[in-house]
Amino acid sequence: MWPGEAHSLKVKEILFQEKSEYQNIIVFESTTYGKVLVLDGVIQLTERDECAYQEMITHLPLCSIPNPKKVLVIGGGDGGVLREVSRHSSVEQIDICEIDGMVVDVSKRFFPKVAVGFEDPRVNVKIGDGVAFLKNVVEGTYDAIIVDSSDPIGPAQELFEKPFFESIEKALRPGGVVCTQAESIWLHMHIIEEIVSVCRQIFKGSVNYAWTTVPTYPSGVIGFMLCSTEGPPVDFKHPVKSINDNERPLKFYNAEIHSASFCLPSFAKRAIEM
Amino acid sequence: MWPGEAHSLKVKEILFQEKSEYQNIIVFESTTYGKVLVLDGVIQLTERDECAYQEMITHLPLCSIPNPKKVLVIGGGDGGVLREVSRHSSVEQIDICEIDGMVVDVSKRFFPKVAVGFEDPRVNVKIGDGVAFLKNVVEGTYDAIIVDSSDPIGPAQELFEKPFFESIEKALRPGGVVCTQAESIWLHMHIIEEIVSVCRQIFKGSVNYAWTTVPTYPSGVIGFMLCSTEGPPVDFKHPVKSINDNERPLKFYNAEIHSASFCLPSFAKRAIEM
Repeated sequence: MWPGEAHSLKVKEILFQEKSEYQNIIVFESTTYGKVLVLDGVIQLTERDECAYQEMITHLPLCSIPNPKKVLVIGGGDGGVLREVSRHSSVEQIDICEIDGMVVDVSKRFFPKVAVGFEDPRVNVKIGDGVAFLKNVVEGTYDAIIVDSSDPIGPAQELFEKPFFESIEKALRPGGVVCTQAESIWLHMHIIEEIVSVCRQIFKGSVNYAWTTVPTYPSGVIGFMLCSTEGPPVDFKHPVKSINDNERPLKFYNAEIHSASFCLPSFAKRAIEM
Repeated sequence: MWPGEAHSLKVKEILFQEKSEYQNIIVFESTTYGKVLVLDGVIQLTERDECAYQEMITHLPLCSIPNPKKVLVIGGGDGGVLREVSRHSSVEQIDICEIDGMVVDVSKRFFPKVAVGFEDPRVNVKIGDGVAFLKNVVEGTYDAIIVDSSDPIGPAQELFEKPFFESIEKALRPGGVVCTQAESIWLHMHIIEEIVSVCRQIFKGSVNYAWTTVPTYPSGVIGFMLCSTEGPPVDFKHPVKSINDNERPLKFYNAEIHSASFCLPSFAKRAIEM
């Protein structure tokens, strides 16, 4: 997905290496980024910078609506998004559907500070295909859906296609919100433009693109599509609630960086807002 | 400066390789980032992403004051900052002091779209040591000084030290502004904290840190120190002017991303605002 360049982390020790039903899974201890999870050769998270991705993909949608009660996570088998969702006291039910059970097991074994999210009693874990799961969801069930997928080559391919977004839209209540991983403005503007165009057809509330810095992702940035369904309007750029993080300080997210993440470089703005 | 990791670009062809009086200079054609300038093994710019760095380091200071007339650039031998300064019609005089004449020659030969900045008739080029140059500047000469340096190991070392910032302060008019390259929040928080602390002692106007995305810099981000001297107050976070870019559209900078660049992740905010 990013020809002509490579980002390498120095390996101290390989801790785990196995092929699951869906992908190759590697965990290694790096010299400067802590432990690293790799799926099909692509870095998914490092202990040093996972905060940026997990906090942003979770709090961008959940701080944009007043009282989320039911939240669905598609993918996110490492548990980091669950850990962040659990900061929201209004939430009563957190469902997660991860396709690869081995990712969950590996995370619990090697990344306890990430997998801690599975310990929240509000969490219901379903190992299975997110696309199939969504088809069986009663219409209008969720306040928020977070799609924490890998890239559109491999098991996550369908999570970037129109039928998937249609199922998301149906599963959300009126004025409900979705946040999906949406690649890099530096490397994948063509994929982003396609996703934006699909989302504009499907989501009648608002459709926005935000981005943040994650050093170990290609080009050092990752983006998010944030959309809302028809209903009470959602102004994603201005969070309606803050997070009390006295006990467990947020490492990355705050209200200012929430709003700032929607400001795009001119080249991306022109492509997306066209 | 970033142990345990490497970012590699695929080389199509090495175009230039020579040792100047100060450093090793390499220019190569990459497969996906265009031509690349490398000093002492560190990527300085690629044709694909140089817009982010050059536009931000220039317009963050120059759009924060109403009518900059005299601008000094320290370093910046590739000419990219000059190219951006030249967009500001109020500017009457652009001085540049670059230590390594070979960088200027190489840029003119291989990066004409960057080195085009040297063609502006307002530009006066001085090849020499920026530290020595500043000592001879008449007090209060410049409205803005931009320090486009390489990292604090090698010829740019002094540009990160207290006496240098003191000379900058003297060379600026009351309410004048400086913008210096100031490393990565992900990799060099200790260097940044030191620079911030030094700047707080010296600049009695305001002291701010901003950052932006540059994929080919380590960790994918680069920061800037923005300070003003005692005098008319400068609110860096809210630009006071915009750029008419109808003829030559800006690729990266816009007023929104200007303000957004001052919003820091919580971990950096805590360290810097302490």
